[in-house]
Amino acid sequence: MNAPSQTLAGSLNLPQPYLLFLGDVAEPSFAKTAFGLAHWASDRCVGELAIGGSALSVGLTPMTPAEAVAAGGKALVIGVANSGGVIPESWQATLVEALDAGLDIVSGLHVRLGAIPAIAEAAKRNGRRLIDVRTPPAGIPVGTGRKRSGKRLLAVGTDCAVGKKYTALAIHRAMAERGIDADFRATGQTGIMIAGGGIPMDAVISDFEAGAAEVLSPDAPAGHWDVIEGQGSLFNPSFAAVTLGLLHGSQPDVFVVCHDPARKAMLGIDGFGLPPVEEVIDMTVRLGKLTNPDIRCGGISFNTGSYSAEEADRLIARESDRLGIPVADPVRGGRAFDALVDHCLA
Amino acid sequence: MNAPSQTLAGSLNLPQPYLLFLGDVAEPSFAKTAFGLAHWASDRCVGELAIGGSALSVGLTPMTPAEAVAAGGKALVIGVANSGGVIPESWQATLVEALDAGLDIVSGLHVRLGAIPAIAEAAKRNGRRLIDVRTPPAGIPVGTGRKRSGKRLLAVGTDCAVGKKYTALAIHRAMAERGIDADFRATGQTGIMIAGGGIPMDAVISDFEAGAAEVLSPDAPAGHWDVIEGQGSLFNPSFAAVTLGLLHGSQPDVFVVCHDPARKAMLGIDGFGLPPVEEVIDMTVRLGKLTNPDIRCGGISFNTGSYSAEEADRLIARESDRLGIPVADPVRGGRAFDALVDHCLA
Repeated sequence: MNAPSQTLAGSLNLPQPYLLFLGDVAEPSFAKTAFGLAHWASDRCVGELAIGGSALSVGLTPMTPAEAVAAGGKALVIGVANSGGVIPESWQATLVEALDAGLDIVSGLHVRLGAIPAIAEAAKRNGRRLIDVRTPPAGIPVGTGRKRSGKRLLAVGTDCAVGKKYTALAIHRAMAERGIDADFRATGQTGIMIAGGGIPMDAVISDFEAGAAEVLSPDAPAGHWDVIEGQGSLFNPSFAAVTLGLLHGSQPDVFVVCHDPARKAMLGIDGFGLPPVEEVIDMTVRLGKLTNPDIRCGGISFNTGSYSAEEADRLIARESDRLGIPVADPVRGGRAFDALVDHCLA
Repeated sequence: MNAPSQTLAGSLNLPQPYLLFLGDVAEPSFAKTAFGLAHWASDRCVGELAIGGSALSVGLTPMTPAEAVAAGGKALVIGVANSGGVIPESWQATLVEALDAGLDIVSGLHVRLGAIPAIAEAAKRNGRRLIDVRTPPAGIPVGTGRKRSGKRLLAVGTDCAVGKKYTALAIHRAMAERGIDADFRATGQTGIMIAGGGIPMDAVISDFEAGAAEVLSPDAPAGHWDVIEGQGSLFNPSFAAVTLGLLHGSQPDVFVVCHDPARKAMLGIDGFGLPPVEEVIDMTVRLGKLTNPDIRCGGISFNTGSYSAEEADRLIARESDRLGIPVADPVRGGRAFDALVDHCLA
C-alpha cells in the first residue's frame, strides 16, 4: 500500500521501511503479523530476518540488520509472537545488533521492549527508539462530535476476529486501484504496523475513545476516503465500548458489516451467540447517526475460509438476495467484491 | 449512608472516616464535593477543616488534623477544587501537617498529590497513602458477560450532569430505609469519596470498561441490590463508550433515566440536542438486553431545580401520564419518588 497522504498529529507514526524479524519460530501460525505485513506492505519492507536456523520465510529477501540499513531500512519490526508474548533470550543479541546497526525496533508484544535491560541499554547507547504499538500516543483529546470534511468508511462486525482489518485493507486497495484518494486508518497493532501509523483503540482510556477516533480520521478533501479498521462488536459483551467510541468518533458515511457465517458463538465468551447481520446493520445505523445522520450500510463482508468455492458462492448469492445488499468475501474477490465496493462508493 | 456490606477486590477502597478539607476557597460552588460528602456521608466524616480565615462550612465540627486523628479520622479528603484542579501552595503546610498527624490524603484533583515534593516526602516519611480517586485500581479484567447473582439498578441519562449520582444515592437511601439489603456502587470521583470505594469508569482503558463494571457489582445474595451510579449518555458523542461498557458490565435488572427537562443542548458540545427520554429507554433496553434479557425501565428521574414547586409537580404529573411510568425528582422526594422506588422494586 502507499504511504498515507498525510501524517497525523496525535497518532502513532512508525519509521519505515522495515526489516521484518521472524525470530526462530518454526510454526507459521505464530507469524501472522509477518505474513500480514508481507501481503499488505511488502513495498514498505526491505527484507526479512530469521535466526537460529529457522526455515520460516514470508518471501522477502533475507538480510542482516546492517544490510537492511544499507538498503534504506529504518526499523526492525517484530513480526512473530510466541506464547505469552515475551521476548525470548534467543532474540536479544539480534535485537541489540539491529539497534547497533541503526534501526529502531517496533513491537506489538505484551512485554515492553524497554523492560529488557540489554535492549534498553542498546537503544540508549545508539539514540534509537523502542516503539510499542500497543501504547496509544499521548495527548488524545475528548471527542467533540464535530462533522469533519471528507468521506469515511468503517468496518464493523458481528464479533471480534471476523475479518474487519482484511476487509478495510481490501476496500482501501480497491479504491486505490480505481484512482480514488484514500487512506487506510489502523486501529489495532497489526494494522498499525501495516499502515505505519494509527491508534490502538482498545488501549485508549474510555473517556477519550471517541476523541481518538476523531484524531485518527481528520478533516480531508471532499473526495478523499478514510477506510477505517474496525474493532470488536456492538454485540460483544466484553468490547462493545471500544466499538461504540470508534463508531461515534469515526462518523462513517458508509459501514461494511464483517461476519464469519461458520461461527456459531462469540469468540472466547461463553453463552453468547452471534447477532444476525441485519441486527448489526440496524444498530449501527441507529447509533451511528448521532454523529453522521447520513450513515448507510455499504455491504456485507463474509469470511468464507471454511467453505468450498461453490458453497461460498452459493452462500454469498443467497445472502445478497435475502438482504438486498452486496455480499462478498474480499479474500475471494471477484465480481461480488467489485459490486460491494461500487455500493460503498455509490 | 452505611458502609458497603462487602469490600470489593479490584475496586478502590478508601480509608474512612474523613476529615473534610475545605481549603481557603470562598466560593461555595468550588466545594461541591464537600457538600456532597456532608449530605450523603456525614456519618463517615469526623469534622471539617477550613484554612486561611475562610468562613466556608458544610456544617461539620471544625477540627485540626491532630483532633481528627484523636476522633478516629483515617484520611483527609480534599473536598474543594479551584480552577485548573491544582493544589495551591497555601494548602501544602496543612496537607503535610495532616500526613504528620497520621492521616492519609484522598484527592480527586487533576494534579497528582505525589507530584508535589513536600507532600510526597511527608507521605513517605510517615508511611501514609496518597490516594487519587481518578486512578483506577490495577488488575481490572476483560468482561465476560457472565450473569451474576443479586439484583442491579443502573442510573442512565440523556446527558452528563443530569443527576445520575444523586438519583442513585437517593434510591439507595430509600431502599435502606425500607430495610432492603443494598449497596451504592460509585463510578465517578465524588461518588467514590462518598461510598468509600468504587471505580472511576471514565479513566478505565476501553478494553476493560465492561470488565470494570463487572468487578464493581459482584455476585451477591438473591435479594441484594447494587444501585450503580451512571456515567455519560449513550447519546453523548464524547462519552458513550463509557456508558455502554458500564451498561453491559452492570447487567442491570432495572434502570432509571435521569434528565434535566430545562436543558436544551448537550453540555459543552456544540450542535447536539438532548434525546427524548423514550429514545433513551428504547436504546438502553436494546443494548442492555445483551447481558440481561430481563432489563426494564424503573422510572424517570427529573432534575427540576430550575422550576418552581408547582411547575415541577405539573411537569412530573404530565410526563408520568404521557410515558405511563413513574417520574419523580429525588431532590423533591414525596409520593412521586416513593412510586418510582416502588416500580423499581416491583
